[in-house]
Amino acid sequence: MVAVVGGGQLARMMAPAATALGVHLRVLVEGPASSAAQVVPDSVVGSASDVGAVRALVTGVPGADVLTFEHEHVPNDLLEQLVAEGHPVHPAAHALVHAQDKIVMRQRLTALGVPCPRWAPLPDAAALQRFLDEAGGAVVVKTARGGYDGKGVRVVTRTDEVADWLDALGDGGVPLLAEEKVPFVRELAVMVGRRPSGEVRAWPVVESVQEGGVCSEVVAPAPDLDATVAQEATALAVQVAQGLDVTGVLAVELFEVRDPDGGSRVLVNELAMRPHNTGHWTIDGAVTSQFEQHLRAVLDLPLGATRARAPWSVMVNVLGSRHADLADALPAVAALDADAKVHLYGKEVRPGRKLGHVTVTGDDLADVRARARAAAAVLRGEEPAGRPAAATASTATSGGAA
Amino acid sequence: MVAVVGGGQLARMMAPAATALGVHLRVLVEGPASSAAQVVPDSVVGSASDVGAVRALVTGVPGADVLTFEHEHVPNDLLEQLVAEGHPVHPAAHALVHAQDKIVMRQRLTALGVPCPRWAPLPDAAALQRFLDEAGGAVVVKTARGGYDGKGVRVVTRTDEVADWLDALGDGGVPLLAEEKVPFVRELAVMVGRRPSGEVRAWPVVESVQEGGVCSEVVAPAPDLDATVAQEATALAVQVAQGLDVTGVLAVELFEVRDPDGGSRVLVNELAMRPHNTGHWTIDGAVTSQFEQHLRAVLDLPLGATRARAPWSVMVNVLGSRHADLADALPAVAALDADAKVHLYGKEVRPGRKLGHVTVTGDDLADVRARARAAAAVLRGEEPAGRPAAATASTATSGGAA
Repeated sequence: MVAVVGGGQLARMMAPAATALGVHLRVLVEGPASSAAQVVPDSVVGSASDVGAVRALVTGVPGADVLTFEHEHVPNDLLEQLVAEGHPVHPAAHALVHAQDKIVMRQRLTALGVPCPRWAPLPDAAALQRFLDEAGGAVVVKTARGGYDGKGVRVVTRTDEVADWLDALGDGGVPLLAEEKVPFVRELAVMVGRRPSGEVRAWPVVESVQEGGVCSEVVAPAPDLDATVAQEATALAVQVAQGLDVTGVLAVELFEVRDPDGGSRVLVNELAMRPHNTGHWTIDGAVTSQFEQHLRAVLDLPLGATRARAPWSVMVNVLGSRHADLADALPAVAALDADAKVHLYGKEVRPGRKLGHVTVTGDDLADVRARARAAAAVLRGEEPAGRPAAATASTATSGGAA
Repeated sequence: MVAVVGGGQLARMMAPAATALGVHLRVLVEGPASSAAQVVPDSVVGSASDVGAVRALVTGVPGADVLTFEHEHVPNDLLEQLVAEGHPVHPAAHALVHAQDKIVMRQRLTALGVPCPRWAPLPDAAALQRFLDEAGGAVVVKTARGGYDGKGVRVVTRTDEVADWLDALGDGGVPLLAEEKVPFVRELAVMVGRRPSGEVRAWPVVESVQEGGVCSEVVAPAPDLDATVAQEATALAVQVAQGLDVTGVLAVELFEVRDPDGGSRVLVNELAMRPHNTGHWTIDGAVTSQFEQHLRAVLDLPLGATRARAPWSVMVNVLGSRHADLADALPAVAALDADAKVHLYGKEVRPGRKLGHVTVTGDDLADVRARARAAAAVLRGEEPAGRPAAATASTATSGGAA
């Protein structure tokens, strides 16, 4: 029996894995229409900061074997209290803090010798000015807590561009840090699963494409990645999982940067201690999905194989849609591609919102990517790129049984 | 929104597919602890013959786009009434009757020219004696309705071996039929999906192994199957789906019989118009699972690809267990094989009961089969075959992190 804080698509996608394993799930949701509440019979309505709701999540009937999360926004004192009362929590508060607070994360990774962008905490405007002077040009300012999907991040060249954040510091506002603006060639990510008893398994390194700070596409494995760099990235992710005592699945987002000698290396960008968008491809593309692995890991069950099931998997997010309801596009996307694996989250359409994703697997990367993008475009209510309207019309009239 | 009559493992395994497609499911269950009720938030408690319960299943909020089934034991007059009131039902009563009544099925298949075992309806003991005289030796007597998993089937050489059934005939008992005892070399099965608008897709032909009338193991594709026979079997299944106007998925169980010339051919044994045990391998072994395809088909969505994702898939049923609760065996089965895909049905353990299944996929049939059998044996609480106790103990002590 696994209790999950959060009722969004990440908790929702744990449900099929729990069904297969015969594991009872209980989810903490914002309301009865939440993405996860639609597919999990046992849910508690409440917020992650509501002590009574989280306690009900854990102590309901049946009692939870473990409490886990689909997001990091949980009060750590509550978690430590639950552990003291004998309720296992994975990941533990002492690990989770590194996904909650970017300053704590940078301090710890630096201490572990894990390569990171140059960074500094920003106690005041003067500290930012010093960092700007040293870095020369644009730097990235982040709120240490509460940011996600591009929120809480600004690229600045002058301190007055974050005057509001700096002013708030004196009033007990969110701590800030600055990071160099890394001239990366692309973004990579490594997902690993780790059990309390120590077993760790990593999936292949993937390439992730961001649009406006939001993941839009993931290619598994990362194309043309140097084998040494892939090994280095995987070893780093395992080191982080072990060094921070992460239990459950961990996403390590990386920058790949070109060295002067033409080689490349990786720097750690962000961490997430939960299933992550860069791991959605594993549902259809790997022997064990990140959702099944997360359940296995937090229950301290032996982990599943993380091998890819096809040479290439491409996952494309559906961010917003012209359809009133994404389900309206099911006939069109099913007609477009019998191989596309469609995942809808049951969420109301809003501009830019993560509403679903599509994964296509196969032998030819260009084909797989084009098809995943085309299917996602249909779900967004757009004409698939590179498919002229005439061809679409012709398909529709000559499609026979379709 | 799909309403499903039945709350067993077949309805349960529709849930993950519905979650991915964003399709709302409502299931008719025996009680709140039913296999499907554990994983589907929207359920109605009642029996399939309870008009009020089935009506509530269809007319709840939201209203059902279609009513479908995980078993055939539904009163057809109720289905026809619902259709008359504007509620789509798939498969329709005029198709479903062939899966409900073996005499109707044999009559229709014979009329279609589909090869079947020699058969005859049994209005009385004299008819059985004539059939015994003609067939010479043992014949199979079946109840036309209500049989499943070996129930309602007897192999007899004398009429008095079914005296109870024959006596009941006069009192309005279940009609009987006799079939020749086919000297088959093995059993095959073909699953097909068919939409109301006509599109049909078949999965590869599989071999099924039965123990005591219950499916115990399925190998996909059927090993060493002559390509012509595979084509013939697939064509027969498509012909049956079309000829009987089946909508949703259809399982066609076949006998493979050796011809005097050394070749082989197939005869239709049984039909099921729902997801079927011989299609469970498709969850992990095919691009589209039978459960997703059933939802697509009854919603008249374009069908998904039915291609196998690996050269071999072997599914082994867990029929009964020495464990008090099958979930108790999760640590052992996960430790045994990181590749085994385990599916537990959340059912109380009873001798011989279908409690779950395991699928293993891969390149080498002998390896895949041995591993699927070993994993199922662990779930049954037995020592995996061919794996001496000493070796198991040694693995357990030297397993490190496991």
